Amino acid sequence: MILHLAKDAPQATIEQAARELDAFHIVKPEYHVLVTPSALKEVPAQYKDVTLESFVFDNDMQLAAASYMKETRQVDIGNISIGGNTHNTMIIGGPCSVESEEQITSSAKLMKELGISTLRAGCFKPRTSPYSFQGLGLEGLRLLEKMREQFGLNIITEVRDSTHVDDVIASTDIVQIGAKAMYDQGILRRCGQSHKPILLKRGFGTTLQEFVQAAEFILSGGNDNVILCERGIRTFETKTRFTLDLCGVAYLKEYTNLPVILDPSHAMGYRYGVPDLSRACVAMGVDGLLIEVHPTPASALSDAAQQIDHDTFRALVESLRPVAQAVGRTII
Amino acid sequence: MILHLAKDAPQATIEQAARELDAFHIVKPEYHVLVTPSALKEVPAQYKDVTLESFVFDNDMQLAAASYMKETRQVDIGNISIGGNTHNTMIIGGPCSVESEEQITSSAKLMKELGISTLRAGCFKPRTSPYSFQGLGLEGLRLLEKMREQFGLNIITEVRDSTHVDDVIASTDIVQIGAKAMYDQGILRRCGQSHKPILLKRGFGTTLQEFVQAAEFILSGGNDNVILCERGIRTFETKTRFTLDLCGVAYLKEYTNLPVILDPSHAMGYRYGVPDLSRACVAMGVDGLLIEVHPTPASALSDAAQQIDHDTFRALVESLRPVAQAVGRTII
Amino acid sequence: MILHLAKDAPQATIEQAARELDAFHIVKPEYHVLVTPSALKEVPAQYKDVTLESFVFDNDMQLAAASYMKETRQVDIGNISIGGNTHNTMIIGGPCSVESEEQITSSAKLMKELGISTLRAGCFKPRTSPYSFQGLGLEGLRLLEKMREQFGLNIITEVRDSTHVDDVIASTDIVQIGAKAMYDQGILRRCGQSHKPILLKRGFGTTLQEFVQAAEFILSGGNDNVILCERGIRTFETKTRFTLDLCGVAYLKEYTNLPVILDPSHAMGYRYGVPDLSRACVAMGVDGLLIEVHPTPASALSDAAQQIDHDTFRALVESLRPVAQAVGRTII
Amino acid sequence: MILHLAKDAPQATIEQAARELDAFHIVKPEYHVLVTPSALKEVPAQYKDVTLESFVFDNDMQLAAASYMKETRQVDIGNISIGGNTHNTMIIGGPCSVESEEQITSSAKLMKELGISTLRAGCFKPRTSPYSFQGLGLEGLRLLEKMREQFGLNIITEVRDSTHVDDVIASTDIVQIGAKAMYDQGILRRCGQSHKPILLKRGFGTTLQEFVQAAEFILSGGNDNVILCERGIRTFETKTRFTLDLCGVAYLKEYTNLPVILDPSHAMGYRYGVPDLSRACVAMGVDGLLIEVHPTPASALSDAAQQIDHDTFRALVESLRPVAQAVGRTII
Repeated sequence: MILHLAKDAPQATIEQAARELDAFHIVKPEYHVLVTPSALKEVPAQYKDVTLESFVFDNDMQLAAASYMKETRQVDIGNISIGGNTHNTMIIGGPCSVESEEQITSSAKLMKELGISTLRAGCFKPRTSPYSFQGLGLEGLRLLEKMREQFGLNIITEVRDSTHVDDVIASTDIVQIGAKAMYDQGILRRCGQSHKPILLKRGFGTTLQEFVQAAEFILSGGNDNVILCERGIRTFETKTRFTLDLCGVAYLKEYTNLPVILDPSHAMGYRYGVPDLSRACVAMGVDGLLIEVHPTPASALSDAAQQIDHDTFRALVESLRPVAQAVGRTII
Repeated sequence: MILHLAKDAPQATIEQAARELDAFHIVKPEYHVLVTPSALKEVPAQYKDVTLESFVFDNDMQLAAASYMKETRQVDIGNISIGGNTHNTMIIGGPCSVESEEQITSSAKLMKELGISTLRAGCFKPRTSPYSFQGLGLEGLRLLEKMREQFGLNIITEVRDSTHVDDVIASTDIVQIGAKAMYDQGILRRCGQSHKPILLKRGFGTTLQEFVQAAEFILSGGNDNVILCERGIRTFETKTRFTLDLCGVAYLKEYTNLPVILDPSHAMGYRYGVPDLSRACVAMGVDGLLIEVHPTPASALSDAAQQIDHDTFRALVESLRPVAQAVGRTII
Repeated sequence: MILHLAKDAPQATIEQAARELDAFHIVKPEYHVLVTPSALKEVPAQYKDVTLESFVFDNDMQLAAASYMKETRQVDIGNISIGGNTHNTMIIGGPCSVESEEQITSSAKLMKELGISTLRAGCFKPRTSPYSFQGLGLEGLRLLEKMREQFGLNIITEVRDSTHVDDVIASTDIVQIGAKAMYDQGILRRCGQSHKPILLKRGFGTTLQEFVQAAEFILSGGNDNVILCERGIRTFETKTRFTLDLCGVAYLKEYTNLPVILDPSHAMGYRYGVPDLSRACVAMGVDGLLIEVHPTPASALSDAAQQIDHDTFRALVESLRPVAQAVGRTII
Repeated sequence: MILHLAKDAPQATIEQAARELDAFHIVKPEYHVLVTPSALKEVPAQYKDVTLESFVFDNDMQLAAASYMKETRQVDIGNISIGGNTHNTMIIGGPCSVESEEQITSSAKLMKELGISTLRAGCFKPRTSPYSFQGLGLEGLRLLEKMREQFGLNIITEVRDSTHVDDVIASTDIVQIGAKAMYDQGILRRCGQSHKPILLKRGFGTTLQEFVQAAEFILSGGNDNVILCERGIRTFETKTRFTLDLCGVAYLKEYTNLPVILDPSHAMGYRYGVPDLSRACVAMGVDGLLIEVHPTPASALSDAAQQIDHDTFRALVESLRPVAQAVGRTII
């Protein structure tokens, strides 16, 4: 249950309510927000007086629920915004991993050239084998910061585990929590204490319910800036790397209040399908796309098969604009 | 392996080759086509003289393979066509089941009004329970024929099992083989002997490889008019009825030569997601959509949750035209 | 809802009830059984007088439900029986396909030698490619009949589609409906009119609910002799061919009244795992096992990788007896 | 590739080899072990002299591979052992979560009574909702330590994220890495530096390949004491909580050298299936079982539906002994 308590209620009452109802307490300019387990269905008598408004839920999708807040939340990232009534579809482009200054500079220039605001690249790679390339770590993060400074781009990179979450929060404009880390409460709770925009990827074996509940870990900590990212789920089909779940995206758009971004590159796993899927995603009216692009995909140190080259990316971005326009949105 | 044998080769040689190579034999105006198991990788010496051209394959996706025929096959349905270089995206609309003459007439009028050429509705319903509504059977088929006569529409209905496949072939403009019947060789082989367009749906537990191989049963019988239909696969996610596999569609577009149609209604299972998904499918550049629409969805005898009403359908079709245009296609 | 109506009720009343309640009507020695859609929750007033007993259900698992009949149904196959209070675990052994008289005779002798009562082998193969070996068809069926005559074995083979269901019912002791045919109402309804034992395999993409409802098609036709067979479902894991669902078996044992048989060979897809899985299945207390065994597995015309050889089969059967004994069952 | 280098090789040569080949270096009494990426297929000429033995692999399952070490590794836990040639099947019992001293004492007494050596209970619960019971944390760990002291039991608990991994390593006899944490390199690498036995659970969306590669993170750090635990994967079937993958267990037994333990409680999600599944697992010849048992399951603070009560556990353990004996193993 979510309760909005009056600003002028005694501090002691609010604290007692939070304790007694086993609730998270978020302080807003207009009211106090208490979030209790969803099993609670009625405002207890002793707190009725200080309760301005209350919301009941079937399950633990509460702060993220469309039944709590109908309109998609607006998230501000540097000087751009998505969600709210912006009708923006943000493109996030860049290589799978930072590999060298030359490589990431080439990517940053491409984004700048096409008016794309946000550069992505992995530094702490959550590889499934200890014997693969593990990323440049902090060195990669420093290179990304340099790109921001040099080209005025927003930067986003992924947190692999909670041992370096503070570094990533400190350096990036959007913190990415990847598919393998999205149940990690060490990361989720830490991100909940920050106010950085968080791009939360759905695990490939994660139900929509669990996915939204992972967002609740962040939201209940007081960070409103959560963006959901669908990146393909694991199914019996193996001709493609994963299965992009657009039915799930329709569900998220209907039942949550969070912006949704899609990652067709990881879902497909092969570059040939990325342009078609990207156009499909834009036509669904989502808030953004994450696309892997590499100066020389064949020699990439990770995910070589799915990254597109710079010319394909240029043509793709060009083709997305009329599709966006057809559904009343703008590519940024 | 596929071999094209010369028209003027001795009949006895061709028959012997077919027998000896365990091959399907299809007679074309320009040549004889022999299709052997894909394990054969070289034209046997004794047939080299009569072989005009030959094609080797990694697996049993042969006649359907893009490596055999690069361009998507054109399929003519009454006075319309899809595939080839038509750039048409065909809408097939109508209720889940024929329920009454009044109901199906209302649907037929809607298609006519919007310039939609093809009316769908089930007569032989492949329900999973013996205690549910099983469809009107032949009576439904007669009503569909009446709609064709009265409104000049193409009609399509589903074959449930091979006991009534001849009736459906005789009456419809497109024969639908549903997700549960797509391994049924009684149906597949019979459809291979016909020349009617066949809309073959992917089973919800069927790999892309098996799906295309089911099409090979029809193609190897000599019927070129096969349309593939992706309608959602079964995954761990249960908030939506199925998971529409657009990565799989990207695969089919890349590796096969068959037109592809999508069924967002069955994939989603809920009407709220159908418009968004339909726009996504059109933006992918597919050859058509199958959309369930009912005069009064709430009282439908089957699949009540996923059928949209007439006004929603009107608005949806209107919104599809600019999306189609943005990707160089025309809604018909 | 299931109603038991009195034997001495007027025939007209029973017929009217069946018609009015949209019910299947099965005549039993002790009473008439009417099975209505499960949506009916109360005996209509006008039939209360003739109703001896009634059973209400949450869903369309009715005749098969443990809440209708607590004890597992007994199924008699020739001179053996499973289910009921027999505590028998029946082994069904034999090759994937009948390939030749020599081959199937070798298999039949092996069963005879080990005291195994039932010989399996496919004649009408539901292959996923038209270019693979499709089975010997009727010729194979004749060879199986010869084995029965010569060695006194029960025989079982699979129906591929409804074009030859009558042949299989006429010739075998158990009719197998395979994973790809289990939604085929042409087959299911025809088997419901017979009294032959039917071994119904679960589709690899089929939920337990749908699986049991497929059995309802047979049971509601009046054939009580249905055996369920779990043979592996399709999941994201591809190191093994399928995933044997023993949790599902636990569900079937708890919530249905039908005997359950398992097929570890198809689930595993590789011979190395078959013995361990077979022992696991027997320890679960199931009613039987279907095991593929071939005189020379490496040269088998279908499913070569998963068939075990005769010596492995001998050792396996020997190892199953103490496991069966440990859980109070007997291998037959 | 794995190389065994001679003990008397110059230290500088070994260090250079490790650096040059991008290898993990493990010091063994008999030789140095270098583990390179599996892409390396031949011992470089300059290291041939110091190489005693080398092993080539198809993929990054290396230290865990049966082709490296045929026999299952022995893991010693306190005064008991599994794997090797012990033929022991270890039972790990206890509640889902530590809830109170009274509750965990009751569980500990039950283990003691039945001669079960290891007590399990969660302290840091990786719940999917922030609004559920999150476990007693360090307080729970202290209670488990008390049980060890009082009853002489081994104790095992789960690490949720890397913020408290050191506490769990310090306190327990087996460190459990749960299904949601098994990609967490912060945890995996830290456990690789320890010598504590690690029970690594398979993620519910994790392939067998990825699962074994997660073990490689620990093994390559120098910790040999890794136990794999299959606990059910997520499939389309929802009547049971997960699907216990015994085909996968057959694969792990064939292709790896690590002991395997099963968790039927989490797989099933309902107590009714736990005894049957437990017997099946024991008959497969696995190295252990993890079973959830609670003094009063109905009032459990987490996973109430799947925990069995004490009497059911007593009867279950009793029934496992003859099954174990039938397959040549001993329950400990």
